[in-house]
Amino acid sequence: MKPKISLLKFLVFFVVFVFSSSSVVEGSVRRFKWEVKYQFKSPDCFEKLTITVNGQSPGPTITAQQGDTIVVELKNSLMTENVAIHWHGIRQIGTPWFDGAEGITQCPILPGETFTYQFVVDRPGTYMYHSHYGMQREAGLQGMIRVSLPEGESEPFRYDYDRTILLADWYHKSTYEKATGLASIPFRWVGEPQSLLIQGRGKFNCSNSVIPSNVAGVCNSTNPQCAPFVLTVVPGKTYRLRIGSLTSLSALSFQIEGHNLTVVEADGHNVEPFTVRNLFIYSGETYSVLLKADQDPKRNYWITTNIVSRRPSTPPATAVLNYYPNHPRRRPPTPSPAISDLPVWNDTRPRVALSLAIRARRGFVHAPPASSDRVIVLLNTQNEVNGFRRWSVNNVSFNLPHTPYLIALKENITDAFDWNFSPPENYDWENYDIFAKPINANATIRDGIYRLRLNSTVDVILQNANTMNANDSETHPWHLHGHDFWVLGHGQGKFNVSEDPKKYNLVDPIMKNTVPVHPYGWTALRFRADNPGVWAFHCHIESHFFMGMGIVFEEGVHRVGNLPPSIMGCGHTKR
Amino acid sequence: MKPKISLLKFLVFFVVFVFSSSSVVEGSVRRFKWEVKYQFKSPDCFEKLTITVNGQSPGPTITAQQGDTIVVELKNSLMTENVAIHWHGIRQIGTPWFDGAEGITQCPILPGETFTYQFVVDRPGTYMYHSHYGMQREAGLQGMIRVSLPEGESEPFRYDYDRTILLADWYHKSTYEKATGLASIPFRWVGEPQSLLIQGRGKFNCSNSVIPSNVAGVCNSTNPQCAPFVLTVVPGKTYRLRIGSLTSLSALSFQIEGHNLTVVEADGHNVEPFTVRNLFIYSGETYSVLLKADQDPKRNYWITTNIVSRRPSTPPATAVLNYYPNHPRRRPPTPSPAISDLPVWNDTRPRVALSLAIRARRGFVHAPPASSDRVIVLLNTQNEVNGFRRWSVNNVSFNLPHTPYLIALKENITDAFDWNFSPPENYDWENYDIFAKPINANATIRDGIYRLRLNSTVDVILQNANTMNANDSETHPWHLHGHDFWVLGHGQGKFNVSEDPKKYNLVDPIMKNTVPVHPYGWTALRFRADNPGVWAFHCHIESHFFMGMGIVFEEGVHRVGNLPPSIMGCGHTKR
Repeated sequence: MKPKISLLKFLVFFVVFVFSSSSVVEGSVRRFKWEVKYQFKSPDCFEKLTITVNGQSPGPTITAQQGDTIVVELKNSLMTENVAIHWHGIRQIGTPWFDGAEGITQCPILPGETFTYQFVVDRPGTYMYHSHYGMQREAGLQGMIRVSLPEGESEPFRYDYDRTILLADWYHKSTYEKATGLASIPFRWVGEPQSLLIQGRGKFNCSNSVIPSNVAGVCNSTNPQCAPFVLTVVPGKTYRLRIGSLTSLSALSFQIEGHNLTVVEADGHNVEPFTVRNLFIYSGETYSVLLKADQDPKRNYWITTNIVSRRPSTPPATAVLNYYPNHPRRRPPTPSPAISDLPVWNDTRPRVALSLAIRARRGFVHAPPASSDRVIVLLNTQNEVNGFRRWSVNNVSFNLPHTPYLIALKENITDAFDWNFSPPENYDWENYDIFAKPINANATIRDGIYRLRLNSTVDVILQNANTMNANDSETHPWHLHGHDFWVLGHGQGKFNVSEDPKKYNLVDPIMKNTVPVHPYGWTALRFRADNPGVWAFHCHIESHFFMGMGIVFEEGVHRVGNLPPSIMGCGHTKR
Repeated sequence: MKPKISLLKFLVFFVVFVFSSSSVVEGSVRRFKWEVKYQFKSPDCFEKLTITVNGQSPGPTITAQQGDTIVVELKNSLMTENVAIHWHGIRQIGTPWFDGAEGITQCPILPGETFTYQFVVDRPGTYMYHSHYGMQREAGLQGMIRVSLPEGESEPFRYDYDRTILLADWYHKSTYEKATGLASIPFRWVGEPQSLLIQGRGKFNCSNSVIPSNVAGVCNSTNPQCAPFVLTVVPGKTYRLRIGSLTSLSALSFQIEGHNLTVVEADGHNVEPFTVRNLFIYSGETYSVLLKADQDPKRNYWITTNIVSRRPSTPPATAVLNYYPNHPRRRPPTPSPAISDLPVWNDTRPRVALSLAIRARRGFVHAPPASSDRVIVLLNTQNEVNGFRRWSVNNVSFNLPHTPYLIALKENITDAFDWNFSPPENYDWENYDIFAKPINANATIRDGIYRLRLNSTVDVILQNANTMNANDSETHPWHLHGHDFWVLGHGQGKFNVSEDPKKYNLVDPIMKNTVPVHPYGWTALRFRADNPGVWAFHCHIESHFFMGMGIVFEEGVHRVGNLPPSIMGCGHTKR
């Protein structure tokens, strides 16, 4: 027997050696041909033009293994509208030109053209993709990316099946109507969504809506496109649910009636497991939760999501947790939740508590640098510039140029944006009252960027404040391209630059790419500027970014390789 | 006295000499800065997103003198949508790259970019401009161009005042919804327009429409934006009305209650005057008519336009002819016309009669070449290709490439379109029954072009036929870019290639850039291929061109000067 065991040991060792490091594994190439076009869809029973990928919204889920190269040949069939797709959570190491952020890393893809994205998924985890151009994401161009460990490796948590659920909110107005309203005087706010969607399916109450025969589409509550999403489970089995949110506006609570959810992954990083009944999830975040089918198997259960942090006027969305062999269309015996059943929308405490509960899993902690080289404090405010309603950081409202920064910086195109404007590193924190409406709501609209020393360590403090309405502060999920950051802390009130850093979690902070700053609160991040390129950092609420709530970091552009010509063609990058 | 008269004579001679020829006159440069963007507008009382130029739809009228150079700096502020503007009726001699036809003469202008059109208006007359990209024209991007004679010269007709009226039809659906429907299986036809607009103003019956509070805009019949257009006249005076039509679909009849209209100009050419009560006008055409304010001056009169050639479901539009000093808002004492008051919609005879009545004015005849070098017969049919509803000529349905022909041909980019496909010069005219539904409705979708010998004379016979519905043939207004053509004849039934040419009017044919082919009829044109460039020739019904009803001519591209880099950036023209 002995030799056999040794052989087994050797084989185990060999397999672990070969597959344990993504930098060693030669991943395979996964090719996708996608056509992006408008189609009439009724995801919530109300027919509306939707941007689809190969006829689907959400688009197809990309499944790959760590180390694989993803090649997406994207054909734009939108007729008169351009497109660009961001691979949310993929750091694009060595391929900063394929980050898909229009105006930052590439020119938009014109109608009729085919653009090829090519990048490596270098880490396992749950990621997403979506349009990153104007407010196009809201039209339905979004989907998920699942990256598994190499063959033979396994996660530090056990499950039997792997399932994906993308959450979204849905408006009946077009993105054009919404964006035009936001850029109008007087300002027209987009309002609350008509529906929430669970994996692309919601239910608008057609009888609430008077549909004009000659204007819009139809509302048909029996359209199979809006039949609820069904998650079928086998009693006793454990399911990994990969949950992502790409809402345009809404912060969500997600729950499955009668079941606990054990959080094990956040934005591609292993989480020290903890159990929740309500998973709060913000636009741009992904979580994996484990669901054990351990309840009464003779019935089905409601899967629901509802709006938090804004006064809800949108009904909760429902899907069905179907215990096999019950019929998937069998209605759970309990009533589905209504708006009136929801907890107080503006109780921030449970959401802050969840943010604080998310820590790196033991054995999977990436220790942050003990200190940083630079601290950038970003005050989040609502502003008014020349009569336009805007969002700003440190009273600078961001405006995208139309020659992408990456190209301008790499090729020294000096008139593409304002190279001389260095956006502020702080605000007047001693005097600014974050609990009051801004005394001076004026801001400046600029396109200057933050230039970081390559491989330096940067701290960012997101400081929330009062909007232009009394007693109002919103939740903003901030998303960083090209990096993960350590979440060092969340706090309430005004960040104290001398005291609060002492409370940073430097032991087991989670790494994420998207994190909320809670109402009247602050969030402290740290990251290493170690990825040569140009990277957006912005509020993931699409209308907020459209209204100026973002900044751009540059690091080591001199180290970026030759830019592919396919990203050119706009602004000052024409031949 | 004598010396004085001689001096006067000399001065008159001098002035006439200096200003009589546009090729001698050094025109002035007229600069315009335009911003194109979406705005909420209520042209027919129903609020809808509209593409405006400097806040207006119709856009500002360009007024210039013969020989002037027009410079339009066009900023695209459409957010995610490109744009291109065609200067309809301007031949772009020497500047074929500024014709504004996306995919043919230029790449589209991207959001955020400023593109400068620069061209000479070399002839007096009435012209138009509009978007020439996708189906964007219908969203409101359109306006007029008035080119007057040089100082000191006068038209061969007398008038006291010069006024402009642009006619359009208007839909409440977005161009995206319409274009998506046309390109869907099953096919969704755009339907009849909700309103007709006279100089950007119509009136939708708000009470007919149930407006959902959460979906679309509002309908407000008292919105000043939809107050009727008022043309104020002084009794006894004569008005030149420059009337253009940029309908997306509708053929129109235009009339002014109780008044005759004397036709004096068509598409920039002087017409031998004749008088009508109803001016039939097709999309892409312009006319000047003289209106004498010679009726009872104590009241106002209706100006109306209504749909012909399609079964009307759109109410006639009304404006007010206001006799000064009556109040402009004083309602004419007669009832405004309703659909039920209209003449039979499908009586083609009066419209053919009008087409035949339009001849060049004596003293202003440009004699056509007595014969042609090439005859191209174009059968107009509706077709079905792989389940898609299309329009075709000679069973070829046109598809725009996304590398503009002009650039591809000039720079020998051989993979930009199918250089080897020569579209057919004729159809099976002996056997084809133009009065029946096509037996074989199949067609091929191609992007090949007609290549013409420079300075050759080309005849085109537009042959109408039955659509895919029994007993149905539509009116198609065909528009040629870069040239005027002589209208040699109109006929009913199938064109007889040996007999009908004998009936051509070679004496005083009008020159035009847009001409209708009537239901079940034919129209014969002749033009000189003397303008180096690449030129579209297409049905001016926007949905028909979108569905393939067009062709492209090339002539003398080797003689075209260096292309401006500003037209590049798309398809194979990236650096």
